[in-house]
Amino acid sequence: MTTRIDNQRVIRAATGPELSAKSWLTEAPMRMLMNNLDPGVAEKPGELVVYGGIGRAARDWESFDRIVAALKTLESDQTLLVQSGKPVGVFQTHKDAPRVLIANSNLVPHWATWDHFHELDKKGLAMYGQMTAGSWIYIGSQGIVQGTYETFVEMGRQHYDGDLSGRWILTAGLGGMGGAQPLAATMAGASCLAVECQPSRIEMRLKTGYLDRQAQDLDEALAIIDEAVKAKKAVSVGLLGNAADIFPELVRRGIKPDAVTDQTSAHDPINGYLPKGWTLADWESKRERDPKAVEHAAKQSMATHVRAMLDFWKMGVPTVDYGNNIRQMALEEGVADAFDFPGFVPAYIRPLFCRGIGPFRWAALSGDPEDIYKTDAKVKELTPGNHHLHNWLDMARKRIKFQGLPARICWVGLGDRHRLGLAFNEMVRNGELKAPLVIGRDHLDSGSVASPNRETEAMKDGSDAVSDWPLLNALLNTASGATWVSLHHGGGVGMGFSQHSGMVIVCDGTEDADRRLERVLWNDPATGVMRHADAGYEEAIDCAKENGLNLPGILG
Amino acid sequence: MTTRIDNQRVIRAATGPELSAKSWLTEAPMRMLMNNLDPGVAEKPGELVVYGGIGRAARDWESFDRIVAALKTLESDQTLLVQSGKPVGVFQTHKDAPRVLIANSNLVPHWATWDHFHELDKKGLAMYGQMTAGSWIYIGSQGIVQGTYETFVEMGRQHYDGDLSGRWILTAGLGGMGGAQPLAATMAGASCLAVECQPSRIEMRLKTGYLDRQAQDLDEALAIIDEAVKAKKAVSVGLLGNAADIFPELVRRGIKPDAVTDQTSAHDPINGYLPKGWTLADWESKRERDPKAVEHAAKQSMATHVRAMLDFWKMGVPTVDYGNNIRQMALEEGVADAFDFPGFVPAYIRPLFCRGIGPFRWAALSGDPEDIYKTDAKVKELTPGNHHLHNWLDMARKRIKFQGLPARICWVGLGDRHRLGLAFNEMVRNGELKAPLVIGRDHLDSGSVASPNRETEAMKDGSDAVSDWPLLNALLNTASGATWVSLHHGGGVGMGFSQHSGMVIVCDGTEDADRRLERVLWNDPATGVMRHADAGYEEAIDCAKENGLNLPGILG
Ligand SMILES: NC(=O)c1ccc[n+]([C@@H]2O[C@H](COP(=O)([O-])OP(=O)(O)OC[C@H]3O[C@@H](n4cnc5c(N)ncnc54)[C@H](O)[C@@H]3O)[C@@H](O)[C@H]2O)c1
Ligand SMILES: NC(=O)c1ccc[n+]([C@@H]2O[C@H](COP(=O)([O-])OP(=O)(O)OC[C@H]3O[C@@H](n4cnc5c(N)ncnc54)[C@H](O)[C@@H]3O)[C@@H](O)[C@H]2O)c1
Repeated sequence: MTTRIDNQRVIRAATGPELSAKSWLTEAPMRMLMNNLDPGVAEKPGELVVYGGIGRAARDWESFDRIVAALKTLESDQTLLVQSGKPVGVFQTHKDAPRVLIANSNLVPHWATWDHFHELDKKGLAMYGQMTAGSWIYIGSQGIVQGTYETFVEMGRQHYDGDLSGRWILTAGLGGMGGAQPLAATMAGASCLAVECQPSRIEMRLKTGYLDRQAQDLDEALAIIDEAVKAKKAVSVGLLGNAADIFPELVRRGIKPDAVTDQTSAHDPINGYLPKGWTLADWESKRERDPKAVEHAAKQSMATHVRAMLDFWKMGVPTVDYGNNIRQMALEEGVADAFDFPGFVPAYIRPLFCRGIGPFRWAALSGDPEDIYKTDAKVKELTPGNHHLHNWLDMARKRIKFQGLPARICWVGLGDRHRLGLAFNEMVRNGELKAPLVIGRDHLDSGSVASPNRETEAMKDGSDAVSDWPLLNALLNTASGATWVSLHHGGGVGMGFSQHSGMVIVCDGTEDADRRLERVLWNDPATGVMRHADAGYEEAIDCAKENGLNLPGILG
Repeated sequence: MTTRIDNQRVIRAATGPELSAKSWLTEAPMRMLMNNLDPGVAEKPGELVVYGGIGRAARDWESFDRIVAALKTLESDQTLLVQSGKPVGVFQTHKDAPRVLIANSNLVPHWATWDHFHELDKKGLAMYGQMTAGSWIYIGSQGIVQGTYETFVEMGRQHYDGDLSGRWILTAGLGGMGGAQPLAATMAGASCLAVECQPSRIEMRLKTGYLDRQAQDLDEALAIIDEAVKAKKAVSVGLLGNAADIFPELVRRGIKPDAVTDQTSAHDPINGYLPKGWTLADWESKRERDPKAVEHAAKQSMATHVRAMLDFWKMGVPTVDYGNNIRQMALEEGVADAFDFPGFVPAYIRPLFCRGIGPFRWAALSGDPEDIYKTDAKVKELTPGNHHLHNWLDMARKRIKFQGLPARICWVGLGDRHRLGLAFNEMVRNGELKAPLVIGRDHLDSGSVASPNRETEAMKDGSDAVSDWPLLNALLNTASGATWVSLHHGGGVGMGFSQHSGMVIVCDGTEDADRRLERVLWNDPATGVMRHADAGYEEAIDCAKENGLNLPGILG
């Protein structure tokens, strides 16, 4: 049997300019694999779990060791294949081909269920790759913060002329993901009132600086918000309470937030949502003894919660489902108009995707934060006038701690990505940076995912479930010379519900890298613009035309 | 709206050495797309349907025209993306990258059903690519004949020391696929008794030379077989009758064939299998009026049929299901041991797959049959001692008519494919051939398909449904420099049941092509050996070792 758990092992990526592999094209995936398992990055490093439930970086410890060994000896014209976290083959390719090709958790559709996956997983035949876990480009919670930040910024752009000062957002849930909301809101310039039913969660967010203040009761919370709004200062406030009580109470009082959302764990009605009127102790004990009763009560409370959200929506307040499926739960409890307000992707992210904008990111293989700060400055230099991007970079530097190798995420799109990549490569070449960088992105991006319950919800032409697009994205990134390319199934929303692809490319300062960066960082976001143009989005069609894309069957 | 049907259009590939595209790397996919729609090749060319139900070469006529236009202007460092038969983008890549990347009919698993596919198809958003229809490497019925031939040869190898002379095979069904059985049997050296319930089907096979003789009754049929067996001559005999009568009657008489199979259309109990005791007229009229009654009667007859097959199996006669699902039907009618005899892939094809052997094929862009005959001779020269391959080539030349561009299929594996490719390229270079060739294969191949009801049925380790393998195959072929690469879903067994990849590579006589051919035609079958070695097949592990494959997580 193979070893899945070894809590004795502590993995950290090497840093600095010395190679232990034969080139930076193989050193880079090795360091990034290790970085995914850094104790400061991974959730359960001893179990190879990086994030997102059981999202792993390698199938087992033997596979991890063999991947590392293979990368150490891999030549610059060879390619390593990784199948669900296990290194299965080394093949002769050529220098412009990827050094690593990865396929994780893919199942023939009829068998693409958690049950069948778990059966294979028990036999040692599978691994859940999530999105960036099994494709070695996870960078810690910075990604979550900025995804939320971008959502809020786009909301501000659409509804408040791009200015969120003096505005406030009502939400609930300060858990693993949701805890990013107050920080993202203040970064975007808005105040935030976040309702959370567990004191420990509020304390945690205060301690890490993600949340500014805690209010003792609703009146105090509203007073703080009121003051902040008047002063046009962005302040975040946590309020202990149940969203199913507080949201309707705000409606009754005629309070009108500038935006409303929610990140309780509504997708899991047994474990994720405290029913109205229940104590935490009731909740905990009943979950064991009578889960069906918890589910029933929680879903009824969610119905109440969603009715209040619908009231805000009807008042004209921008209101969105934040990917936790709360509309579905309310619908099942008889709230017929639950889907009247949209999900966050169609509402706020899709316009970005139409321009190829998504979670672009890079990491410094030197391990030196200064390298990232220098790239931050370079990004600003190359994007004059892009205020919200500059704002993000300033705030990120101040308020987000690096985890593992220093890294930066920033949402940029077609036309910007390759410029940044080339500039970074130049900085490596001329010695401004202490070692090469890797550039990658999340699988949640413009052209790289088919996921009808999230990223491709409610596509204009009804093509939500068509997964030709992420497959073409992976094939094109392979043809363009990305350093590693991955194809996954089931990330984010679970088995059966998504297919997506990843790519990472190394800036090693060479002219070969220039050529590859220019192609890959243009083609990759361009496939996103293409996919959205094909679905009929005007913004994408315009973007394609502005950038001179050649899309025969789409632009004619 | 787009145009799906245009029976006025007659498409034939250009032949000869003149280019109308910018290079052979783009001329070749253009000619092969057109060849798929040649009236001598395609089933319904006016509807763009090539074969296999609704397997299309392009989504609609507008898409066809745009693909052709795009290929005519495509440069040797650009790549065209085709999404479910529609050309969606042209991107800058490099000369060792594929010129065309194709994704057809892929759906996120939860939505991967015929219902959802048809919904998209009606909106003009989808196309069923089958296997070689949407990936432009279908070569007519030659492929079917040889697949069946290889099955029979392998059966002979396993059970009769590779010598089928004086042996005979009992089967039923002389339809589109099944009609290849008598020809394939005699080519493999065995006699064949084929039971078929429709006179027209028997006449058709006699006329095309696929069947040698027709018997008036069972006695006559057995007399012909008996004589052929004694004379060690291979003769095929058609017998009009119902398999559900004839198979049990043979058991009663104590007749022992040397192998038993069946290719009635058992997978479709309403339209595909004549119930025992019914006339063809009964069948036809009842299908309209009372399809449920037909289904019931047909399935009961199949149970009888399978019981006879089990009787043969118990006598020690090699007996297989030929991919028509008849075991499942019998099981549903209470034949509890229906699955006691195996499917044809685990029984006969898998050992070939373990060595990377599969439906390798090539076509002559010159249009000149002589080019194929010269390659036939070259194959023989390069595979001395491979008698059954030589036998196949001789018989194919004599007995199979070319359809569209002259082409040849021959099952060879790892170690042979790249040698043939390099030799063919040399023949183009030195002018022995009149124009370049393309080399490709079916998606039904060693490393390119996950299909738990057929190609990956009953894998040794239970990994039938793991589709990482075909995805890695496509990515590696892209990285290795195949000329076009495709990823499909649902070919052969329908939506939800398979994922598979295709590749085609051009021999244009250049040294660039040498380099690519050597990589692609080695790596492609090597992924098949790898996949089977990983599943624990000794033959694959041995083959991997003999060929010096570097499979870190598999060979250690
Ligand atoms: N937007 C996206 O792309 C995205 C990504 C991942 C997850 N999600 C979804 O967001 C949700 C939150 O994720 P998470 O990781 O923060 O989950 P989590 O379980 O860590 O946090 C949920 C929080 O909600 C609180 N809560 C539960 N019921 C409450 C109630 N009635 N009133 C107030 N607070 C309550 C819990 O105490 C907990 O702190 C999940 O449903 C998740 O699926 C969205
Ligand atoms: N092995 C493979 O890889 C593979 C590939 C494709 C199809 N198939 C399966 O093979 C089967 C045959 O395919 P096809 O294209 O030849 O189908 P088809 O429908 O063209 O032919 C079936 C033939 O069986 C005859 N038949 C029906 N009931 C009969 C009976 N009771 N007794 C005698 N004859 C009977 C019909 O008259 C017909 O000629 C199908 O189930 C198909 O799915 C297998």
